[in-house]
Amino acid sequence: MRDVAVIGVGMTKWGELWEKSLRTNFVETALLAIEDAGVDRIDSMIVGCMSSGLFTGQEHLASLLADYLGKTPVPAARVESACASGGLALRQGFIEVASGMSDIVLVGGIEKMTDVNGHEATFALGTAADQEYEGYHGLTFPALYAMMAVAHMHQHGTTREQLAMVAVKNHANGSKNPLAQYPFKISVDDVLCSVLVADPLRILDCSPITDGAAAVILCPADMARSMKKPAVRIIGTGQATDTIALSSRKDPSWMESTHVAAGKALEMAGLAVKDINLFEVHDCFTIAEIMITEALGIAEKGRGGRAVEEGLTAVDGKSPVNPSGGLKAKGHPVGATGVAQAVEVVKQLRGEAAERQVKNARRGLTQNMGGTGGSSVVHIFEAD
Amino acid sequence: MRDVAVIGVGMTKWGELWEKSLRTNFVETALLAIEDAGVDRIDSMIVGCMSSGLFTGQEHLASLLADYLGKTPVPAARVESACASGGLALRQGFIEVASGMSDIVLVGGIEKMTDVNGHEATFALGTAADQEYEGYHGLTFPALYAMMAVAHMHQHGTTREQLAMVAVKNHANGSKNPLAQYPFKISVDDVLCSVLVADPLRILDCSPITDGAAAVILCPADMARSMKKPAVRIIGTGQATDTIALSSRKDPSWMESTHVAAGKALEMAGLAVKDINLFEVHDCFTIAEIMITEALGIAEKGRGGRAVEEGLTAVDGKSPVNPSGGLKAKGHPVGATGVAQAVEVVKQLRGEAAERQVKNARRGLTQNMGGTGGSSVVHIFEAD
Repeated sequence: MRDVAVIGVGMTKWGELWEKSLRTNFVETALLAIEDAGVDRIDSMIVGCMSSGLFTGQEHLASLLADYLGKTPVPAARVESACASGGLALRQGFIEVASGMSDIVLVGGIEKMTDVNGHEATFALGTAADQEYEGYHGLTFPALYAMMAVAHMHQHGTTREQLAMVAVKNHANGSKNPLAQYPFKISVDDVLCSVLVADPLRILDCSPITDGAAAVILCPADMARSMKKPAVRIIGTGQATDTIALSSRKDPSWMESTHVAAGKALEMAGLAVKDINLFEVHDCFTIAEIMITEALGIAEKGRGGRAVEEGLTAVDGKSPVNPSGGLKAKGHPVGATGVAQAVEVVKQLRGEAAERQVKNARRGLTQNMGGTGGSSVVHIFEAD
Repeated sequence: MRDVAVIGVGMTKWGELWEKSLRTNFVETALLAIEDAGVDRIDSMIVGCMSSGLFTGQEHLASLLADYLGKTPVPAARVESACASGGLALRQGFIEVASGMSDIVLVGGIEKMTDVNGHEATFALGTAADQEYEGYHGLTFPALYAMMAVAHMHQHGTTREQLAMVAVKNHANGSKNPLAQYPFKISVDDVLCSVLVADPLRILDCSPITDGAAAVILCPADMARSMKKPAVRIIGTGQATDTIALSSRKDPSWMESTHVAAGKALEMAGLAVKDINLFEVHDCFTIAEIMITEALGIAEKGRGGRAVEEGLTAVDGKSPVNPSGGLKAKGHPVGATGVAQAVEVVKQLRGEAAERQVKNARRGLTQNMGGTGGSSVVHIFEAD
């Protein structure tokens, strides 16, 4: 396999983008990545998107976007793994460059979620769960993660306040990210007094509904060294599945697919988790970040709540998690999230993260997840 | 890149399968392929499906299927390119094995289309067109292909009877395929007297709505030689996009994406179209097969109608097209079609096609297409 590097990144402001269609938002974002890379062509496109069918009535998505980007007849593939669609797109792009099939590959992620009403959005997101055994019985994702939170609190003594601290940390980071949907700080009290969604989770424990896109350009590492910006190599990739229904898991408070995917990525990179300087992880709900912290090995099993309380995962802590603001503050356009994580890590490793820059960042890890952890994708990046 | 071979194939009976759910149909089919290959593990899964979201309210599809196949935590990816989703899955699986990332990869295709009503199915299929410029104005796929047929008849003198002959040929072939949805013969008169759908296309010019699945197992060619069944190598792959909206094309009677994809696949294989012994192509409508025949170079531009009339594409002709019965008679569960084409070619190259066996078949080609040709995927297979 050839070594692969990221040579360009692009991201536009996230939020309720009623003035931009699916296609215009993607094209604008992809052009930023192409400009950043300084390339005059792309050989292939991979697009991550969870459900353009249910959110916008549009499938055949990659061809549409290749067309509107003016890049036909390049090969274009859409990939889907629910909220891990963006991470999966990055992995498929990595494999395509590593294989020698294509040299310069555009990896994009997009979701346009606010053109439907709340009921429709909840249904569309619910299709990431097992429809026959979960969805049909009325389970939604806040309800599923609430059960995971209760299990974690029961087994490990995780506190309601520790959950809130995840949101507080990520909003503090996100307040320094001009592209974030909600770039403002909140307090623990704000979280604890916010509207109850599914006990114990409140609205400020939940990532929002977002329109957004992100893109990166990949090429072989050898070629990357002659490009405009400093190259960032992808030195590890791991992907894993788990049972799609939460009720089938041995332990609903443990994120096995993330643990397996991270193990593979670290093994490929020849590194341990202590060698990583920053993490962008899938905090779709506050409890998720706590469980991921444990599954990645940043904290011991059951100690994810304490990790955030003790500042281990703060930007100036030992293992900074979500310097971008995470899904909580940056927003969560589901198919775009995994690609945006890569955008943030690349900016950090290039030293371009401005006010939210992690000091001496040389290696970063992204963890993107579908459903309640039915799929996870992990990548490890290193400054070249 | 490593050489890649198909070592197992599986397909179950297609039709209106109200007794089988999406997941049970996939698992049954995948197990046939695993049994045919004689492998005791798979390292990764790629699943092609156009719109499980709109047809069944289920996304996160690859994880669901990995779970129900009992294969977690293997990596599992779903890919989508409308009706070319199956062909795209094969290509992504090929790249994954060629890269060295995985050895034994299960490539599956599935669509469950009959759990919704006719209006909903027409809407779901219509999402393969440009929703903003085609769908919203009421265009459906029969209407789009009818315009292509009119253009072809106007420019090249293709006759109404020649269109019918495509359906007659494919039903004659399909009558020998026990897994086909409609395994019976029809006559030119049957086609000409069938219900008008979108002038000049009648119901017997159109492929049906189908539930179905297909699967193949890939591995490196070196490893394939020690397997249970004779290996069939994939010696060429090509993928291309075109404008998604028909109105943006220079010539609506010419299938450019197929022409480009086939050119790439043939170049990779070091072959010319005359070296291919049989073809499985995307006859979603009779006019499509005529246009594809031309785009592949089986017939000269404008002579696709004559090719079928003169028997060039019959099973005992110079260039047999759709010995399986094609989409017309076999059925068209959109995401499964591209994988089923590979199943047929592998069976033909192994000499396992029974009554529909093409004589002296050594090399075969599959052509799978999305929308009105907004994407095409071509593969070339050779008996090892």
